[in-house]
Amino acid sequence: MMLPTQETTLAEARILDCIKSPADLHLLTEGELGILASEIREQIIDTTSRTGGHVASSLGAVELILACHSVLDMPQDKLVFDVGHQSYAHKLVTGRLDSFDTLRSYHGLSGFPRPSESPYDAHPSGHASDSLSVASGFAKAKLMRNTDEKIVTIIGDAALAGGMAFEALNYIGTEQLPMVIVLNDNEMSISRNVGALMKHFGNIRANNAYRTTREDLQERLESGGWFSNAFAELGRRTKDSMKHMFLPDAMIYEQLGIVCTPPIDGHDIHELRAMLKLVLEMDGPVLVHAVTKKGAGYEPAMADPERFHGVGPFDKETGEDLAIGTAGISYTQAFGRALVAEAQRDERIVAITAAMEGGTGLKAFHREFPDRFIDVGIAEEQAVGMASGLAAAGMKPVVALYSTFMQRAVDQMIVDVALPDLDVVFALDRAGIVGSDGPTHHGAFDLAFARMVPHMRVLAPSSASELASAVHTALAIGGPVAIRYPRATDVDCRDYEPELLEVGRAAVLREGRDAAILAFGRMVGNALDAAELLAERGISARVVDMRWVKPLDAEAIAEAAQTRLVVTVEEGAISGGAGEGVLDELSAKGLYVPTLVMGLPDGFVMQGKPELLLEELGLDAEGIAHAVSSKLARFHITE
Amino acid sequence: MMLPTQETTLAEARILDCIKSPADLHLLTEGELGILASEIREQIIDTTSRTGGHVASSLGAVELILACHSVLDMPQDKLVFDVGHQSYAHKLVTGRLDSFDTLRSYHGLSGFPRPSESPYDAHPSGHASDSLSVASGFAKAKLMRNTDEKIVTIIGDAALAGGMAFEALNYIGTEQLPMVIVLNDNEMSISRNVGALMKHFGNIRANNAYRTTREDLQERLESGGWFSNAFAELGRRTKDSMKHMFLPDAMIYEQLGIVCTPPIDGHDIHELRAMLKLVLEMDGPVLVHAVTKKGAGYEPAMADPERFHGVGPFDKETGEDLAIGTAGISYTQAFGRALVAEAQRDERIVAITAAMEGGTGLKAFHREFPDRFIDVGIAEEQAVGMASGLAAAGMKPVVALYSTFMQRAVDQMIVDVALPDLDVVFALDRAGIVGSDGPTHHGAFDLAFARMVPHMRVLAPSSASELASAVHTALAIGGPVAIRYPRATDVDCRDYEPELLEVGRAAVLREGRDAAILAFGRMVGNALDAAELLAERGISARVVDMRWVKPLDAEAIAEAAQTRLVVTVEEGAISGGAGEGVLDELSAKGLYVPTLVMGLPDGFVMQGKPELLLEELGLDAEGIAHAVSSKLARFHITE
Repeated sequence: MMLPTQETTLAEARILDCIKSPADLHLLTEGELGILASEIREQIIDTTSRTGGHVASSLGAVELILACHSVLDMPQDKLVFDVGHQSYAHKLVTGRLDSFDTLRSYHGLSGFPRPSESPYDAHPSGHASDSLSVASGFAKAKLMRNTDEKIVTIIGDAALAGGMAFEALNYIGTEQLPMVIVLNDNEMSISRNVGALMKHFGNIRANNAYRTTREDLQERLESGGWFSNAFAELGRRTKDSMKHMFLPDAMIYEQLGIVCTPPIDGHDIHELRAMLKLVLEMDGPVLVHAVTKKGAGYEPAMADPERFHGVGPFDKETGEDLAIGTAGISYTQAFGRALVAEAQRDERIVAITAAMEGGTGLKAFHREFPDRFIDVGIAEEQAVGMASGLAAAGMKPVVALYSTFMQRAVDQMIVDVALPDLDVVFALDRAGIVGSDGPTHHGAFDLAFARMVPHMRVLAPSSASELASAVHTALAIGGPVAIRYPRATDVDCRDYEPELLEVGRAAVLREGRDAAILAFGRMVGNALDAAELLAERGISARVVDMRWVKPLDAEAIAEAAQTRLVVTVEEGAISGGAGEGVLDELSAKGLYVPTLVMGLPDGFVMQGKPELLLEELGLDAEGIAHAVSSKLARFHITE
Repeated sequence: MMLPTQETTLAEARILDCIKSPADLHLLTEGELGILASEIREQIIDTTSRTGGHVASSLGAVELILACHSVLDMPQDKLVFDVGHQSYAHKLVTGRLDSFDTLRSYHGLSGFPRPSESPYDAHPSGHASDSLSVASGFAKAKLMRNTDEKIVTIIGDAALAGGMAFEALNYIGTEQLPMVIVLNDNEMSISRNVGALMKHFGNIRANNAYRTTREDLQERLESGGWFSNAFAELGRRTKDSMKHMFLPDAMIYEQLGIVCTPPIDGHDIHELRAMLKLVLEMDGPVLVHAVTKKGAGYEPAMADPERFHGVGPFDKETGEDLAIGTAGISYTQAFGRALVAEAQRDERIVAITAAMEGGTGLKAFHREFPDRFIDVGIAEEQAVGMASGLAAAGMKPVVALYSTFMQRAVDQMIVDVALPDLDVVFALDRAGIVGSDGPTHHGAFDLAFARMVPHMRVLAPSSASELASAVHTALAIGGPVAIRYPRATDVDCRDYEPELLEVGRAAVLREGRDAAILAFGRMVGNALDAAELLAERGISARVVDMRWVKPLDAEAIAEAAQTRLVVTVEEGAISGGAGEGVLDELSAKGLYVPTLVMGLPDGFVMQGKPELLLEELGLDAEGIAHAVSSKLARFHITE
């Protein structure tokens, strides 16, 4: 593999600058593709050192992407990414070089494939394990219409642990769908996560399409002479394996009816292209087992791929973070610390996450209580289902996930936890606007889907210290409880002892008579600032930290109805959210008063800094103040 | 296997009558257990011939359940069912014989395990594929506490296709959790559904716990001499299989690190007990491959297990349905017919279901368009993910699921379909109150989780003909559209041509000035009847068939606000539902008027006839009329 040299500068003439569409790649020699890979690597490092981004996985997939594009005819052919934050090279060769510096920024290029951004982006991948299902749809459509486009997916080994990927493999193998699965095996998690559905052995072996594909591939390998004898030998052995079979790593997928290649070097463009050309001629599913290295070509990322998974701006030369340390404590850290403190007092507490140990702040918990820490991999359904069993057995599981990934286990929250009314705490990190990851990662829906579930209680703490109290309270009161909190830093990092919060009791933070702002979570701070702005305009606004989204504080709501305008502000979808809950409570109590419901609109919010997005959405202090004063004016009820 | 004879009557002395708790089974000989199995079978047939129920799978699992209970010490030991409608025998030997005749009826015994009903019910199983996750939690708790209870699950082969089961198997195999998985292989769906995760081969083979378990089991089998030589031979071969391996059907799970037995007769109590006693002593996961027959012991059910999967009252002797044919057409049938009609006009239409072909009315579609019908098995995530790919490729997929099972693919609805704004129609059957299946099967949450999703449009037709128009409209307008409709019959089965419904336009069915009832779906009929009752009481109520839950008809709502009370009635959870959407619209328009939001309460609704449940919930005509008149009286605004 060619690595960029320190001497190379972006100012030099580059092949990359000549690539206007992936069709241009067809004109390059493999040597030139290798040079292009180095240029792309350097571009990715250069840009992400300023914008931040998913560096390690993007660097690891450069040759995979170039090899695919050089043999595919996009956009007729389809390339479906699984968790598309590895797609930077794809963006660079599909006409987005000029805008690449806007990566992940407000109104800039998405850090993930986005069909509305480019016809070369087949699917807005962002949640792991979905690529095989989506690609199976493309492949099925091809069969139905009898067309000849090629379907390729690139999926990492960790994503194969997700149940959705398994369901797809089962279908793909059974139906022998014509598609190529490039397994991007980056050795990070293969020991834990590699998995596959095995189809009924005899059935698949007897399937003609499968046999034809396998024998065809085998023949070509043997006749081509270009490939290692080892694989041909392996293939012969497989062919003879109706009774005796050797199973190397990736060959496990053979059991599914998916023909697998032996592991090849995922950074060797020649090897990749030769293999892809071969397998793209097959009529059934083939898995190309490509071994790659996260962060390939950039020493700091290879040395610490976990840190370079998602990273902020960094020093290109050293790889050191450039981010200025912000004062205070993140909600994530506060949650982690709070849970450790609780676990010290109660040995029944168990932490469960789904491949988000660092992201959910559980590293310290893992260190201190290794036997009470569970990481199930990318498998949210298992995380919640297992929590159900643990709770039924008398333990106190805390399931820590990102809000957006909790969407993968809504049914389990309902049926496996809430219906039997079990003591399971859901700690939903990155609720609300998450920033540069954009629409697939914002936690917009958790208030709606948690509220709708019977027995569920929902807390939205407004500060790091309130989060600690929320964790304490959730564990103390029992039953299913969700706590949701933003990806944010709280400047207030005073020492605090967690308090037992009274269920359904809000806290009035500021008195006021013209309007009452009932605020949830991070919006409490903005509401306080808005009240200040309103005061300057002669409007007296009460601010209430509601704390509980469910049950709501009926008294606080009734008192709010005695002002001239009841305002609700939340960082979540208005449809089904806390504000509608307040309206419902007002309706039930027969309090018909002017109301203003503020929250995320009925649309997918794009990426950008949370402050900017909240401002655009009118959820910053100024936006709230403006909306409140406008609504009051509209009702002619300001003084 | 002993079959009940025609001569046997319930009046004769029975062992069953002496079984007060499963501990009593420990006192029986295997011969007596066989007699008990026959008595239980007869009891199940006798009761379900009157109550209806899940006959075929319950008859198929009798010996499995008796064998488990006879070697377990419940409730210390845990028996977790996967889709517990096979658990009737379990209910009969755990103290519920006397109430068994109330099975599935209002305030009667649940047709599924229900922890609140009995300490012997470990988990409220109802949605397929969750048992392994739940049991993994029990097993993990046992390890954490170093206790010695036994953990057993019974899971059917079809349920193993679900992604959640795969996620659990992956975890169970990796962690070598001490539990027994009884695979109830009823040969119904094994060719399609058998599947398993394969763990990295070398890793698991090198795992000490796994090796110990396997070798220990092997030794005992060989020394015991009671078992077939074939299995011992097979085991020896497996032990030698680091390079060469024979894989019979269930041995595929070996790849997961789960020791598998060879297939045994799932109706042979002796064989089952011997195997269970053996495997319960192992420290790692073992899968007992039990081959059973659905409907075993009852000719009509064996002859037509699909009809006897879930059946109404029937003639015990002949197996014929006793249900009096109701006039009219079910919503399910209406949907099926409408989709066939649409598919005749547009060849891009594809129907996708997840093991609910008959239940969603797609049999005719399957017959007429075999190439455009897709059944992915119990795999809702794949159903929706695949629909995404098909739609992106220009097809028009219609995903037909029960509302309650759509909960399994909420994330896919959001990320894979709504975010890229694809033309996917979700046909959600059995929305609202479903009747005797109870809380795991009511479709209570679809309005909330569909409403919260951007780009989504949601229709709730109020009649079979409106459903046909909804299907026509959803396919015509494009984008993601959900149509939800009840498990009910519409007496109006006139010929109709589907109409193109204007998006977000309601239909006023009855004029009125005192109150306006904005009704959704099946509740429209009840609202009309309520208006009649109200008229008798001197209250003039408008009735509006809202048709669209999203977007709501803003004009109809504004007009409703000109009456003295805006009432919303829906057959779904109030939290996040259509009524809250109406409140939101009123708030946005500054229309602060008395409102009454009616729907399902914030609790799990138990089983029973839908009419009875709706009456209890106050959603029948009388309940609606009473609530409206009370609320009007409360505001002293009746004339």
